[in-house]
Amino acid sequence: MGEGSLVFPAGEYVRRTRALQAEMAARGNDALMLTSQADIFYVTGFLTRFWESPARPWFVVVPSRGAPIAVIPSIGQDLMARCWISDIRTWDAPDPFDDGVGLLSEVLKEVVPATGCIGIPMGLETSLRMPLGDYARVAERIAPRRIADATEVIHRVREVKSGAEIDRIRDICAIADAAFDKVPDIVRDGPALDRVFRQFQMALLAAGADWVSYTAGGAGQGGYGDVISPAAAAPLRAGDILMLDTGAVRDGYFCDFDRNFSIGTPSDDARRAHDVLFKATEAALAQLRPGMRACDAHRILSGAIAAEGAIPGGGRLGHGLGVTLTEWPSFTTKDLTVLREGMVLTLEPAVVLAPGRIMVHEENIVLREDGPELLSRRASAELPVIEL
Amino acid sequence: MGEGSLVFPAGEYVRRTRALQAEMAARGNDALMLTSQADIFYVTGFLTRFWESPARPWFVVVPSRGAPIAVIPSIGQDLMARCWISDIRTWDAPDPFDDGVGLLSEVLKEVVPATGCIGIPMGLETSLRMPLGDYARVAERIAPRRIADATEVIHRVREVKSGAEIDRIRDICAIADAAFDKVPDIVRDGPALDRVFRQFQMALLAAGADWVSYTAGGAGQGGYGDVISPAAAAPLRAGDILMLDTGAVRDGYFCDFDRNFSIGTPSDDARRAHDVLFKATEAALAQLRPGMRACDAHRILSGAIAAEGAIPGGGRLGHGLGVTLTEWPSFTTKDLTVLREGMVLTLEPAVVLAPGRIMVHEENIVLREDGPELLSRRASAELPVIEL
Repeated sequence: MGEGSLVFPAGEYVRRTRALQAEMAARGNDALMLTSQADIFYVTGFLTRFWESPARPWFVVVPSRGAPIAVIPSIGQDLMARCWISDIRTWDAPDPFDDGVGLLSEVLKEVVPATGCIGIPMGLETSLRMPLGDYARVAERIAPRRIADATEVIHRVREVKSGAEIDRIRDICAIADAAFDKVPDIVRDGPALDRVFRQFQMALLAAGADWVSYTAGGAGQGGYGDVISPAAAAPLRAGDILMLDTGAVRDGYFCDFDRNFSIGTPSDDARRAHDVLFKATEAALAQLRPGMRACDAHRILSGAIAAEGAIPGGGRLGHGLGVTLTEWPSFTTKDLTVLREGMVLTLEPAVVLAPGRIMVHEENIVLREDGPELLSRRASAELPVIEL
Repeated sequence: MGEGSLVFPAGEYVRRTRALQAEMAARGNDALMLTSQADIFYVTGFLTRFWESPARPWFVVVPSRGAPIAVIPSIGQDLMARCWISDIRTWDAPDPFDDGVGLLSEVLKEVVPATGCIGIPMGLETSLRMPLGDYARVAERIAPRRIADATEVIHRVREVKSGAEIDRIRDICAIADAAFDKVPDIVRDGPALDRVFRQFQMALLAAGADWVSYTAGGAGQGGYGDVISPAAAAPLRAGDILMLDTGAVRDGYFCDFDRNFSIGTPSDDARRAHDVLFKATEAALAQLRPGMRACDAHRILSGAIAAEGAIPGGGRLGHGLGVTLTEWPSFTTKDLTVLREGMVLTLEPAVVLAPGRIMVHEENIVLREDGPELLSRRASAELPVIEL
């Protein structure tokens, strides 16, 4: 990142704002009210880890025309002023008597006529990052202005990545590739799982990640039970399958892929499961096209697994990726989202080896006109073996 | 962390649940509905970085008597089952047709009579981590049951830490102390600020942090402009004051303190500012007592700064600390929260050196009957100097 805080030239944010405004116009929203770290970063370039503190709400209002207005705690004024936003209204937060309610309401009344409608993302995979009580107060103050769901406005714009965004995701994928290369050395150097997790995060930072927002994994004899737990202090043993998964961040963009390793010679079952996962991913890499739906990606992946006589995992088998660790759509049987050129996605097939024992394989791609282009370096076809 | 996922023995969570239930009874809540990472970890011990994915909501319902009920995506079943919770209801999330709305509504109707009231935290420093549209659907389905603000229920219980919690925060503070000791070597080895940030995070992991949820800082000639920005690639120069601040995590508990360093010989102004900050912190360490209010802490800190002829920073001068990077109360003029024995707090005086140039100093304490006990190792009275 350069001296300023903008990840991209201002033109990128102007383009995004205009794309949102076109969606807003098509859906009858006179303004968009954004509260989440991801949406605010997307529109303004405001990048900070300070969201980790739940103390203060942050707001950006996108009017039907012109540049967004930031309504933020004064502690963020300097950083926001280095973004492309010039209309910045601040208050001293946290304020137990009025934590931005008055200021935000005034801005909404300023940019939206009394008969107008304010869009707020309130659908699947969203949440309103402000106190619910204050939301009710704002809604009351801005009446008779209506509030409507603007999830589609955000989703249809954010889900298609620009070339500049794809380059950023490719960068962080390459950083994770380099860190995964270190895993055999890390494991041989000290095989307690919690130590492996720490050293893997250090390897990500050493390779150039700005920070590591997510590391998870699993380890168990011939497979693992779950993929979201923190690491136990127990040592890895011969026969374990180790999986490491990461959402590392560079310039505000995430990677999200995993790698599996066999500690010592793998069982035939484990080797076969890895082979099935590899082939399922190959099928998706060959067949996925713009115009298909998210449920088609699920069908391709689970179908390829079943064709090999294995049992697909029950959860989603891939998802969007970008300014958060996971974005819509979800590769499930129920998600009808149309896959579009420029979407960055994960392919994440899972197989069930036995009750409570699974294996998961993940790659990151961008969907091109003629199919997926890999952003992560393709995993090896053979399950890698680490001899302790 | 051990083989299971419980940070503490089950008794700790039983005690917390009973304390919440006593507050609920006193305030007329027949159940508590929790959606945030912090509240759910606090009640159940469910610790995962998977919250980084915005895809799925998670719910825990605390009834007026007995153990909490988890209403969660099936991907979390294994991990939750290793906690002390036995009543776990799951659905396959994300589900675009019903993402837990039906299941959550049924549980609330099961444990709360039709004339009853469900408490949800909706005040300062809270947010509801679920889609706003789904919240409205749940509210409709559970009618005529009422929903009321339960911020006080959560705040009055979570803000007083048990001995076991204080031990955890002391552990992560010691880890950060060890990492801050490495900063002179890190800076001399390569003084680009973004590299310093990465190396500092690696030092935190090497010292035993499970992960590093927050690193921020600043660097500038004789002081810095803001304290929430990510690092630029620019090299540190003689005359810069470097500040590093971290919220590292061990076993789900945060530290939050910073350290200042002078690159080369500091200016008299910078040396003097550090001295003022040190003295202000000494004043708070000497004078703070249970029974005072948060605004009294602000008065002590800002008064000590003004008594030295310096200008206190405009923001809050300290706050709570625990299972999130920052917790209530806030040391401002407006926060009337009573300080209680067992609260873990940050003392964070700031001085303004010139427009856009500040210095901030931070320590972590637990408030005892006879005053503060330091959890971070006290910063040196003299501003440390790093010669490049």
